[in-house]
Amino acid sequence: MNQKPKLSSVRYDVSLPISGQRISAVYRVEASSAEIQKRAEDICVEQTIEFPAELVTSGDIREHILGRIEGIELVREGTYQVVISYAVEIIAGELTQLLNVVYGNISIKSGIRLERLDAPDKFWNTFKGPRFGVAGLRRYYHVPDRPLLATALKPLGLGVEALSELAYQYALGGIDIIKDDHGITDQSFAPFKERVTACGEAVQKANKQTGARSVYVPSITAPADQIFERARFAKKAGAGGVMIVPGLVGFDTMRCLADDDSIGLPVFSHPSWLGCFAVNPDHGIAPGALLSQFVRISGADVTIFPHAGGRRFSMNLDDCKDIKQECAETMGHFRSIFPAPGGGMSLERIPEMKQLYGNDVIFLIGGDLHRRSPDLVSNCRAFRDIVEKIS
Amino acid sequence: MNQKPKLSSVRYDVSLPISGQRISAVYRVEASSAEIQKRAEDICVEQTIEFPAELVTSGDIREHILGRIEGIELVREGTYQVVISYAVEIIAGELTQLLNVVYGNISIKSGIRLERLDAPDKFWNTFKGPRFGVAGLRRYYHVPDRPLLATALKPLGLGVEALSELAYQYALGGIDIIKDDHGITDQSFAPFKERVTACGEAVQKANKQTGARSVYVPSITAPADQIFERARFAKKAGAGGVMIVPGLVGFDTMRCLADDDSIGLPVFSHPSWLGCFAVNPDHGIAPGALLSQFVRISGADVTIFPHAGGRRFSMNLDDCKDIKQECAETMGHFRSIFPAPGGGMSLERIPEMKQLYGNDVIFLIGGDLHRRSPDLVSNCRAFRDIVEKIS
Repeated sequence: MNQKPKLSSVRYDVSLPISGQRISAVYRVEASSAEIQKRAEDICVEQTIEFPAELVTSGDIREHILGRIEGIELVREGTYQVVISYAVEIIAGELTQLLNVVYGNISIKSGIRLERLDAPDKFWNTFKGPRFGVAGLRRYYHVPDRPLLATALKPLGLGVEALSELAYQYALGGIDIIKDDHGITDQSFAPFKERVTACGEAVQKANKQTGARSVYVPSITAPADQIFERARFAKKAGAGGVMIVPGLVGFDTMRCLADDDSIGLPVFSHPSWLGCFAVNPDHGIAPGALLSQFVRISGADVTIFPHAGGRRFSMNLDDCKDIKQECAETMGHFRSIFPAPGGGMSLERIPEMKQLYGNDVIFLIGGDLHRRSPDLVSNCRAFRDIVEKIS
Repeated sequence: MNQKPKLSSVRYDVSLPISGQRISAVYRVEASSAEIQKRAEDICVEQTIEFPAELVTSGDIREHILGRIEGIELVREGTYQVVISYAVEIIAGELTQLLNVVYGNISIKSGIRLERLDAPDKFWNTFKGPRFGVAGLRRYYHVPDRPLLATALKPLGLGVEALSELAYQYALGGIDIIKDDHGITDQSFAPFKERVTACGEAVQKANKQTGARSVYVPSITAPADQIFERARFAKKAGAGGVMIVPGLVGFDTMRCLADDDSIGLPVFSHPSWLGCFAVNPDHGIAPGALLSQFVRISGADVTIFPHAGGRRFSMNLDDCKDIKQECAETMGHFRSIFPAPGGGMSLERIPEMKQLYGNDVIFLIGGDLHRRSPDLVSNCRAFRDIVEKIS
């Protein structure tokens, strides 16, 4: 009983099979010049060993597992850019653990913002990334070069008949992508299966009349045990993609969805719930990292976000430029993805948005199509005319 | 071709089957006295219909689906408490949609903090809630009334043998709950299955020597398609619970895990990744709502969080009081759950923590057990002595 083990039986100076490959996270850290080294070291510990560093004085845990400071640069008085690298072995090929290592525990601190991730191509190969990307989606949707038009079925509360009638009119008016509003799930007044069937059929009916190829993209954010069932139903019903909220279901669930060959549909990422990361300039995750890099790693083909100046949201123009940039930045084998700026945009904003985003963009206009006149089809055609004129 | 439909075919003044039952979200909103009414109305629209409210002038969408302002009270100059209610029908019985309605899109705004949820008991019945709760966990772990002791296996980088040796020594020293550090997942140097088997056996071995009933709680945060497999493996290996990060896998995945009768283990919720919601006093979700209410709705029995003043994290004492309060607050049929304050705590802090949390608490002490002396078993016994003395 109570046989006392020697503590020396647990040694911290272990040797590990380590490739030497590392990923880098670029942080912006608030600190005085006297504090910054210590703050950077603290991130290295917190995100990896979470253990008194003074007890791990040698060996591969010290040399490789502990985060490593690669650089500290003054950005402006009180703010530094800090680059910290992590051994790829601690990620274990898991997206959940990647997120955890680059921003898990430090999310509960303050004054640390993750700006960007960098990794060797070989590391990015761990994840399949977007199945379609910009080029693939253009082929799939038969829109070779102009910006794409999207809108949302709403308001919440409409029944299946009304929503499918809206879908029909949107498609008649020349909207390429007709998606559910993200709050429309499986409410009793518009149950998922009936809605997806009816809206899909309505868009097909319009396509037959116009000769165009509009698509319907249902929202499949759902309880964890129903997401894939809904995705498969959407696929069978002829949906042209699925929209999901990674903030609510987890980025890795979106990855599984994108990777699933039995579904194989374009994936639209919606930013609901993720705002707290992105809207605080001092702490959180820069929009380009959160809504482009993480979304690409997770395999989505489209990242929806609120464009600056829409009165409804707090994103600014620099945030939007950052998102656009990271949608197309070289990042291993990952395909470029579409930015889909929306969030209270009006047709008047399109020329300005076109200037920022270029042609590889999906313009998402919702309420404004209803406000302009009682003739929804005409309003959609006006949207289409503006886009065709400027592209 | 191009047969033009009448817009009147889509009517917004619909009648809906609505029970009249509503849930309430209490927000703290930054606004001037001139702005507050408009800001509150904006939340009502944004979280429900996301549609020009002026186009929905009558009918049940206007009356019931649209969020409803139940009260606006001045907290202090520039800050108001705003209570908004939502029809239970828009939640559709989905936890994902509950989160989406109470804080989805407004997360991308600023100056809006969700403080608390209130709902009729009948609504809470939608979700099963914690399987064990405080009383159930005390029975399961055979600890009738004192605070429970917990610690973490770390640092990341140790192999299976070293981690299981640590588990053995912790158990010999009288720690009730020995959990993985949340960054230990399935790394090549300590693969999940080997680690869980070995650590489980090590704790059993110590239990046989001491006659006590320590438990091992592995971390099962993992890619979405591996979580349940890991949980089932943990169950078979005799684990005394599982720990998961709802921020990374989604709250609803934690709910599915807790609800799964084929697993049926206590669930420990870890706060990694969720900090951005909780650390900004002006925007986000109050710790009591995020780390207690949402965690209870999601079925966890224990909520881990950093206690105030640990130098590692930004939670303050009011946050901790809020968490403690909401762990035990009456909330429909949901069982009370254990707060598990940790995050760089030392043995010296225990009496003060005991004052705040009382006996229904799990003290989580990690690194400090290694710092005190080279004799880990003695250090654990000192922890146990302190707890037994004050309870």
